[in-house]
Amino acid sequence: MEIAIIGASGYTGGELMRLLLNHPSAEVAVATSRRLDGTPVASVHPHLRGLTDLVFRNTEAGDIDADFVFLAVPHTAAMKVAGTLVERGIKAVDLSADYRLPKDVYEKVYGMTHQAYFEAPYGLTELHRDEIRGAHFVANPGCFPTGATLAAAPLAEFAHTIIYDSKTGVSGAGNTPSETTHYPNVGDNFSAYKWTTHRHLAEMRQEIARLGSGARCYFTPHLLPVNRGILTTAHILLSEPMEQKEVEALYRRYYADEFFVRYQKPTLAAVRGTNFCDVAVESEGDRVVAVSVIDNLVKGASGQAIQNMNLMCGFAEDAGLRFAGMLP
Amino acid sequence: MEIAIIGASGYTGGELMRLLLNHPSAEVAVATSRRLDGTPVASVHPHLRGLTDLVFRNTEAGDIDADFVFLAVPHTAAMKVAGTLVERGIKAVDLSADYRLPKDVYEKVYGMTHQAYFEAPYGLTELHRDEIRGAHFVANPGCFPTGATLAAAPLAEFAHTIIYDSKTGVSGAGNTPSETTHYPNVGDNFSAYKWTTHRHLAEMRQEIARLGSGARCYFTPHLLPVNRGILTTAHILLSEPMEQKEVEALYRRYYADEFFVRYQKPTLAAVRGTNFCDVAVESEGDRVVAVSVIDNLVKGASGQAIQNMNLMCGFAEDAGLRFAGMLP
Amino acid sequence: MEIAIIGASGYTGGELMRLLLNHPSAEVAVATSRRLDGTPVASVHPHLRGLTDLVFRNTEAGDIDADFVFLAVPHTAAMKVAGTLVERGIKAVDLSADYRLPKDVYEKVYGMTHQAYFEAPYGLTELHRDEIRGAHFVANPGCFPTGATLAAAPLAEFAHTIIYDSKTGVSGAGNTPSETTHYPNVGDNFSAYKWTTHRHLAEMRQEIARLGSGARCYFTPHLLPVNRGILTTAHILLSEPMEQKEVEALYRRYYADEFFVRYQKPTLAAVRGTNFCDVAVESEGDRVVAVSVIDNLVKGASGQAIQNMNLMCGFAEDAGLRFAGMLP
Amino acid sequence: MEIAIIGASGYTGGELMRLLLNHPSAEVAVATSRRLDGTPVASVHPHLRGLTDLVFRNTEAGDIDADFVFLAVPHTAAMKVAGTLVERGIKAVDLSADYRLPKDVYEKVYGMTHQAYFEAPYGLTELHRDEIRGAHFVANPGCFPTGATLAAAPLAEFAHTIIYDSKTGVSGAGNTPSETTHYPNVGDNFSAYKWTTHRHLAEMRQEIARLGSGARCYFTPHLLPVNRGILTTAHILLSEPMEQKEVEALYRRYYADEFFVRYQKPTLAAVRGTNFCDVAVESEGDRVVAVSVIDNLVKGASGQAIQNMNLMCGFAEDAGLRFAGMLP
Repeated sequence: MEIAIIGASGYTGGELMRLLLNHPSAEVAVATSRRLDGTPVASVHPHLRGLTDLVFRNTEAGDIDADFVFLAVPHTAAMKVAGTLVERGIKAVDLSADYRLPKDVYEKVYGMTHQAYFEAPYGLTELHRDEIRGAHFVANPGCFPTGATLAAAPLAEFAHTIIYDSKTGVSGAGNTPSETTHYPNVGDNFSAYKWTTHRHLAEMRQEIARLGSGARCYFTPHLLPVNRGILTTAHILLSEPMEQKEVEALYRRYYADEFFVRYQKPTLAAVRGTNFCDVAVESEGDRVVAVSVIDNLVKGASGQAIQNMNLMCGFAEDAGLRFAGMLP
Repeated sequence: MEIAIIGASGYTGGELMRLLLNHPSAEVAVATSRRLDGTPVASVHPHLRGLTDLVFRNTEAGDIDADFVFLAVPHTAAMKVAGTLVERGIKAVDLSADYRLPKDVYEKVYGMTHQAYFEAPYGLTELHRDEIRGAHFVANPGCFPTGATLAAAPLAEFAHTIIYDSKTGVSGAGNTPSETTHYPNVGDNFSAYKWTTHRHLAEMRQEIARLGSGARCYFTPHLLPVNRGILTTAHILLSEPMEQKEVEALYRRYYADEFFVRYQKPTLAAVRGTNFCDVAVESEGDRVVAVSVIDNLVKGASGQAIQNMNLMCGFAEDAGLRFAGMLP
Repeated sequence: MEIAIIGASGYTGGELMRLLLNHPSAEVAVATSRRLDGTPVASVHPHLRGLTDLVFRNTEAGDIDADFVFLAVPHTAAMKVAGTLVERGIKAVDLSADYRLPKDVYEKVYGMTHQAYFEAPYGLTELHRDEIRGAHFVANPGCFPTGATLAAAPLAEFAHTIIYDSKTGVSGAGNTPSETTHYPNVGDNFSAYKWTTHRHLAEMRQEIARLGSGARCYFTPHLLPVNRGILTTAHILLSEPMEQKEVEALYRRYYADEFFVRYQKPTLAAVRGTNFCDVAVESEGDRVVAVSVIDNLVKGASGQAIQNMNLMCGFAEDAGLRFAGMLP
Repeated sequence: MEIAIIGASGYTGGELMRLLLNHPSAEVAVATSRRLDGTPVASVHPHLRGLTDLVFRNTEAGDIDADFVFLAVPHTAAMKVAGTLVERGIKAVDLSADYRLPKDVYEKVYGMTHQAYFEAPYGLTELHRDEIRGAHFVANPGCFPTGATLAAAPLAEFAHTIIYDSKTGVSGAGNTPSETTHYPNVGDNFSAYKWTTHRHLAEMRQEIARLGSGARCYFTPHLLPVNRGILTTAHILLSEPMEQKEVEALYRRYYADEFFVRYQKPTLAAVRGTNFCDVAVESEGDRVVAVSVIDNLVKGASGQAIQNMNLMCGFAEDAGLRFAGMLP
């Protein structure tokens, strides 16, 4: 199967190419970039040198010749091409935020009119597998909502309040330099940002509600001096106290059949570079601490996108994604 | 005034010596270490080379000749010498946990019988200045409770629930190598530890109660890949919603006369190496996020100990502590 | 083919298991550890959870049932079992230093008598491929000599002096905590160690001599605040000046057929987790700067060991090793 | 004495203000910035909050009212105002490169015509103290040449070749974000840059020549994932072998009277934030490894500039600079 990546020069584009190198049934045939037309992919992604001969092309969505498309462009750019892909009958996963929320919520959160809205399944694979399997177009979740929701889902119905305190690596900010990503502002340092106003909160609330929970959700992200990974500490306040044994059993059961969700003490390094989400939980009665870790660029973006592609195309769900991260 | 530091080979001992180098009225005359008797201080603390000729001595508390003593030994070691100092009439600040809690709480939290209990003021300077001023022996607070309490104090009476989500640098673990501090386990990594069971929680609850608040307190610490600093994100759930303007004004007023507490967007680097605590606050109605940063070895230990000494001895409270950290 | 790893609890053991998970013709069947007999491998190597059910066993070399053995034990431990493997006709790669040098050099450098010496090919694959192909027992090179030699080899015959200035990540020190690896001693820090006395220099000199060069070799290693990777800056003083064009052409030609050696501007991150060695060169006339990067645990240890196994067993040289690192 | 800093918004400007806060005889009265006219200094340098009320002003050199000026602007900007200061009889230290080299060398190295050349002493204090003492205008050295020259100076006359292999923290690149300083390109990574072409080499060669040495000098810088500090490994090839004892004695003697140069095993952390340069040396006969560490923003820039100001104004050379760095 031939794959096109629209917007392949960024980190998520690079990850898609890295991961698909070892996919048994899919191969990247087209990597687009407006800015880098004609440039070898390996000049921008030096870790791919020797493994791919791809060259960036400035190809329009209407001219792309591929069986499957990943949209790895920013929000608002995705909505400009999504319709074309759907009309042409090309299956696609959109890694941007453009189709993750209902139209009205999107417009409020992103402060703009959505020009090309349609409904799409929300690609948090473990929670929406059936919808994704039959879909032609899937909205890949945000990195924070992926880790946060997997941390809290098993307890959602028992909670009255959930506070997500997340800590992310810097690659989440993309590959464009800024004050925020300037090394001397980040190295050996730590800070919170968008303390109460991060847009991903809308996705988190949506998922908790879909789980049938009325819990109030709050979210504060922080910037870690690490390259990759998100650790989310979900402080879950329960309506009725639960003991550790019970809570842990609940989590183990909930994820028993999930290859990519492992119940073990979470540490960023154990999932780095992989599609795994490690989760564990500790109860002190009325508060439960559930912690999850993911790689923001893999399970939080490109890996989950491939996991969704696998479902949409009838491949094994772990095709191309069954490998260990490196530790240390 | 001549100072003795009992247990001067660790990080807090090193910080005491670094900071006191520039104190106008105090000079370190004795630096004890059982293990390093006869070794020049600068061999262990190379940043002090050229600035001190001190040599570690294995001197017993009963033989120490000094006007003021800092106890920079671990808990249980402090209680073995505290009584001697008190009897000899030597003023002291104890950086260990031995006198921070009532006897019964201490024994429960630390799982042992306290052999030499007496009451001592809790040295969170900004909250207990008057008690400290008249004291002969002060129990210096834990690093986490210092930052956490300063973050939440102004809102304590309005809160029903406070969740402290803290992130600390590795120097908090001391200078003895362990699995926890092994670079490949920490570098480019992040994890939570003692999710619901850290001993410092007892101090946090004690302080919130002393502020007249009935708020429930929870605490989860995390280990950052940085050398120094603690950032605490206090998620404060209010009984009645408060607007941003109101909350911010409350904080600015609360700390208006405090030289060492600054109201500005907290980032570890801005307080690194100093006795400052930077605090700011953001409300989303019923939840307020209050964030504080301190240097765990300075405001969280040696700096606050000197601040307390200054009060106990009638010096200016900021003597020896009035300097900027370095940034970046 | 069934593989046994003797000493599988350390970093190189972990890497062998990680890499062999995706090998088409080899599977790890035995992972020994004296200390951890009965413990699941995933308890020590959490990144392998869900991917292996292996349990550490305390099995003696004489009792191991496998087609191929990796010795991932420290030097002096390897020599105690190497003979047994050879006698039993089991092919093996030794990742320790025990068979890398002639007996007399080894005894001088390592300050001891070699109890069980025999000759073995030196497993720097690109330079000794033919010898390795026919061997039953191969001595895998040290991490520093691998990167350093690949940096200098093309110019060895034209040089009169080669100074290797190497910078390594902390995982090179193994997984046992020490002062050297204590985070606060390494994070945001940098230093040189064994400025003129590192044992790997003997291997470097041996390889330069085998290339027919009479160049004098020097070596100074440094410790980086990074987890993995070695960058070696080889300062090569030439007998006759050479222009940039000429030198670069020489390097490109020398490595033209080598899959694992890529000519591109070296940066640790581009080879992290992989068996690649990136090399480039810049001439200023009589001095040439040649820089190489490798992952110390992969091309510098476990990856090259598998590359050698592939040759020894008639597999494709890149079997199990053909994947990209992650960047960032 | 009143100080003006021209170009006070960058890292060296921030350091000048931090350090001068504790100077007994000098006070910053003017901090200029074209871009930030009217902005409080503490908004840009949050570590200075509470310690200074200064506000950036867009003041021209001709209008500055001060007793002493630091030029903390980039090269080419400094030459536009240097003449004005000299004419007005205001003593100054220029932290840029504009007056470090003879006109012809400068024009060749920086590829431009020098519009306002005059001769100025080179402010490597330890080597040119007498010239500096009497000067009205001093050219502060580059960060790399400072550390490199102090490492090699004692052996310069005995060397035939000196290779400086330097590793710098990221703050050396200034506070403007770029690809080079983007965290994901630097964190957990390492690389060389300007392998043979860094402009600072001209200063290094000049200083070695001034020491009466005919040694050939080479220089390759590298970028460390640390905020501050430069470690230079000087590989010194001697005309005649020298023993360790002899070399070490030479260094200790050479720097015996220098407060800011300490003979001890160099590690970045021990000098971080301070004006110290730690140096040590190890001989293996015909090659000597001399290693130095400095803080690039202090001894490599603002600290040495103040050291020079102290000499130029008749203050104690260590005024305002006599304090320890923090470790860890």
